[in-house]
Amino acid sequence: MVKATALYGHPEKPEAFDEHYTRTHAPLVEKIPNLQRFEPAKIVATPDGSELPYYLIAELYFEDLEQLQDGFDSDEGQAVAADFENFATGGVSLFFSEIGA
Amino acid sequence: MVKATALYGHPEKPEAFDEHYTRTHAPLVEKIPNLQRFEPAKIVATPDGSELPYYLIAELYFEDLEQLQDGFDSDEGQAVAADFENFATGGVSLFFSEIGA
Repeated sequence: MVKATALYGHPEKPEAFDEHYTRTHAPLVEKIPNLQRFEPAKIVATPDGSELPYYLIAELYFEDLEQLQDGFDSDEGQAVAADFENFATGGVSLFFSEIGA
Repeated sequence: MVKATALYGHPEKPEAFDEHYTRTHAPLVEKIPNLQRFEPAKIVATPDGSELPYYLIAELYFEDLEQLQDGFDSDEGQAVAADFENFATGGVSLFFSEIGA
């Protein structure tokens, strides 16, 4: 199993981010071919009370790297990537990882 | 459901990191009270081929924030925190998030 992790920086307008994420972005993500599980999570705390390093972490699970890459390369995957500029005003860092590796 | 996410920066000696992580750190993590699932994943790629922003992402799942906090505050949780200095030579960023929020 592999996953894509998206780390969103703090947006300029959190309420607008949340609304766009829930109503528009998440439904686009759910359409990505081969996607097995989608897990968005709002960051709420750090162990020592320091500043939150990111605003939201979203993870997309796939069977393997080939299925992940095919999903991202699809029209639906490209639509997700194209949507970042509509709401990710704090930037987004995206990387792929192999679970258990 | 909530999770703690640990993002490890690139270690000075990846092989030594991997060995310590597998043989010592992961077994300590598995002992944390209330822990429901432990998911370490080695970062292997980015969508555009750019530099990997982190080396490893590890996620610890708990029922709720209170159980997470109790787990981290326990002797076993403190042993995990105390072990970072033994191998996390590239630093570690740690934060808690609420899934689905």
